[in-house]
Parts: sequence; structure tokens; C-alpha cells
Amino acid sequence: MKGGIFYAVSVGPGEPDLLTLRSVRVLEKCPVICFPQTDSASGKKHHIAFDAVRGAVSLAEKKILFFPFSMVPDCAAMRAEYEAAVSSCESFLRQGMDVAFVSIGDVSLYSTGSRIADLVRERGFEVRFVPGVNSFSVAACEACLSLAGRNESVLIIPGDAFYMEETLRAALLSPGTKILMKMGRHLREILALVDALGLSERATLVQKASLPGQKIFRDEELRHLDDSVIADSYLSILIVKNNA
Amino acid sequence: MKGGIFYAVSVGPGEPDLLTLRSVRVLEKCPVICFPQTDSASGKKHHIAFDAVRGAVSLAEKKILFFPFSMVPDCAAMRAEYEAAVSSCESFLRQGMDVAFVSIGDVSLYSTGSRIADLVRERGFEVRFVPGVNSFSVAACEACLSLAGRNESVLIIPGDAFYMEETLRAALLSPGTKILMKMGRHLREILALVDALGLSERATLVQKASLPGQKIFRDEELRHLDDSVIADSYLSILIVKNNA
Repeated sequence: MKGGIFYAVSVGPGEPDLLTLRSVRVLEKCPVICFPQTDSASGKKHHIAFDAVRGAVSLAEKKILFFPFSMVPDCAAMRAEYEAAVSSCESFLRQGMDVAFVSIGDVSLYSTGSRIADLVRERGFEVRFVPGVNSFSVAACEACLSLAGRNESVLIIPGDAFYMEETLRAALLSPGTKILMKMGRHLREILALVDALGLSERATLVQKASLPGQKIFRDEELRHLDDSVIADSYLSILIVKNNA
Repeated sequence: MKGGIFYAVSVGPGEPDLLTLRSVRVLEKCPVICFPQTDSASGKKHHIAFDAVRGAVSLAEKKILFFPFSMVPDCAAMRAEYEAAVSSCESFLRQGMDVAFVSIGDVSLYSTGSRIADLVRERGFEVRFVPGVNSFSVAACEACLSLAGRNESVLIIPGDAFYMEETLRAALLSPGTKILMKMGRHLREILALVDALGLSERATLVQKASLPGQKIFRDEELRHLDDSVIADSYLSILIVKNNA
């Protein structure tokens, strides 16, 4: 089908200067820019992506769309939200307008954008992914931490899901570096497990990597975190380096 | 100690437009830019990093340094090379000049830059890491592939090392997405193992992601690769999605 191109555009973890030159160029040329609004309760996530883009690209002449997505994995409700977003994008693509759909971090990892892109492709439109800086890379860099050397592996874990499935303990004890993302409401329990396994001294917690209010906690500090830190789990990344 | 700042600067996988705005800004302000030359035989790696930077930043007024690093893990020889690189950087830092040391991909993952940074910090200078786009993110994006959804893990594996240690089979059979990097001289054997485990139809091989000459092979294609493809393992990334 002819029409506009759908770009799933990565914008990094939130600081405007962590966009790539390519993401800036693609956003500049797209007349329509879509933002997922995945944290409806606080609205935090939508503001982070929006502020990142607004700091790097002029939005004055753009059509800006916000799409709400439920965080609760209710298939029927989510599917309806996805269909609504895709249909909205389609109306612009049909007019030959390019559409950018923004993802925090890199679009290939835990993004809504890649799923929307799949649905847009199914409707016959051309889809392209624009890569970006992963939030865990920024967390590691802000802590001046090497995640892995020559022979070491790195396991990226959705923390809350693994905690709920009781697979987190085995994952934490396996060799190599662990990166825990998406710890959600179980951040305190996850930190307690890391400590019980004797791994606190190999752990680093980075909150709001590179954003205003960034905090880094290591070792002993991880045992005495304020409730305010625990409550702010949304942009938290825990790195555990239990290499030999 | 007073002096210049040492920046370990990520430049992404090689295309100039995959540098972040921050990396461009840091490289522009540093009067000294260092490139690791880790593939001395072919000189490939040094050209990739150099071309990436040259395409995004004017090098006309810069002091450019190339540091050769052995790929063979001989501790004494490597330590001597590292010490030589660090001493060279120190001579500029002592004069108050900022030094940028370039890393392909992101500096927190499998980089020489992070190890040089550690040694520079030990000599009393300020060190900062500037994050970048991981090469596996670009590989996934070029293939329009989502690495992981909500509840899925991602394991990043140095392929050659795991193959030699005979830990690759178990890693490939564990749940979640696998990203194989650094497959080196065992690319053919690794592909044969993936096939023997019945995982070829879940595998994607991306070579030279986003660079001229990029190639993507999937499924049945992976069983019939030319020797020229196998020989070009240096910039190859294999993604195996054996999620449920």
C-alpha cells in the first residue's frame, strides 16, 4: 500500500541530548508525532518522552498525539487501546503523512512502539525502527560501571515479573551481570532478596539515570533506603555484578 | 588532582548519525581524541570508529591518537599496551586538556574504553562515561525485531567464549531471548549448534548493522551461508528468540 512511513523512534532515557542525530532528523521530518501514555496514574512516562523530544526538536508545526495504554495486562482492554492507536496512525499514513511513534530507551526492548509497529505493518504500511540508547546503558555510564568484560554475559531481567514467578533467585545466582528493570511494586522485596543472597556489595541502584534528581546507591546504602526511594521505582535500574 | 577530564565516549555501531547529541558535543569540545585499534590484522575496527566520528565531528583542529591493542589475551602484553595508552592520555590531562577515548557501541559493554578509564581514574583524574547506542539494538532495529516483551528476559552472550567453555548449549536452551556477540572464529560452529538445537527458525543474523553492506539472514538462509559471510564474523550479531 502506498502512504506515509511509520517510524518507531527511540529517544533514549529522557535527556534531550541523548537522542541520536538520526532520531532528531526523523522526528524533524515527520509531521505527526505520537507519544504513548503508559503511566496514566501519575502521567510520568508521557512527560519524560515528551520533554526529551521537545528539548531536541521543534514541535511548533507538528500534529501531536497522546495515546493512553493500560499498564494492567488485560488483553481485551489493551487490544482495544492498541487498535485505537493504530487506526489513528493509519488515518495520517493514508494521507501520505509520515508518523513517528516515540519510545523511551531503545524501541527493541520492552516498548509499546514495536507492538504498534507490528500492527501498522499488518495493515500494509512500511515500518522502520530507529534505534536509541538503552536506559540501562545510561545507568551504567552514570555510575561509571562496566557491565561486562570480554568473557562475561549480561542478563536483562523484568524484575517484577521474575519476582512474581519466583524465578528471580535462580537468575540472580547464575553467573554474569544482571540488569533488573521494571521492578515496579516489588522493589523493596527484590532488594531484600539481593541482600539475602549476599549480593548487596555487588549491586548498584540507579534512579532517574541522567535526569534531574538522579540518585545512585551502592552496597551498604541499599540496606537503608527511604520509602521515597522505594516509591520511585518506575525509573529504577538495579545492576548486580556477580562475576567470578 | 587538577587537570583535564577523561571522557569514555560511546559512538554507536558505526554510522555517524547514530551518535547522540551529547557524544557529538563532548567530542567537539575535547582537543584530544583517542581511538583504540583492536583489530590490528585488518585494521577494521579502528576505521569504523574513526569514520563514525569523522562523519559527525570536525577533526581539523584535534590531536588524534591511535592505540593498538592485542586481541590475544596475553596479560603482560595487554597490560603494557594499556599502560602506554594511559600514560599518553595522562600527558595531555596534566596540561589541563580534556581527552575523549572513543568506544564503538556503548562504553559499558565489552569496551576497552571502560578499562582505560579505570586506569586513568587510578592516576587521580576525573573520568566520565558518555553512553551510546548498543550495536545489538541497531541489529534488532534494522531487522524490525522486538528483543523482548513485558515479561521476557534477554541474555547477552560473548559467543566465542561461551562456545569454548562449552556453556553455549545450556545458555541457548534457557528461556528468553539470546543475543550472541563476539562470535569470532566460531561463527560457523555456533550456527550449527543453533540449528542442531532446532532454533534456526527463531534466529536472525545481522551483519554490519546499519553500515554499507548490511546483511540480514533468517531461518532457512542460516543453513546455507557462504564462506564470505562466515569470514566476516567481526560485526555479526545473532539474535535467538526462544520465548514460549
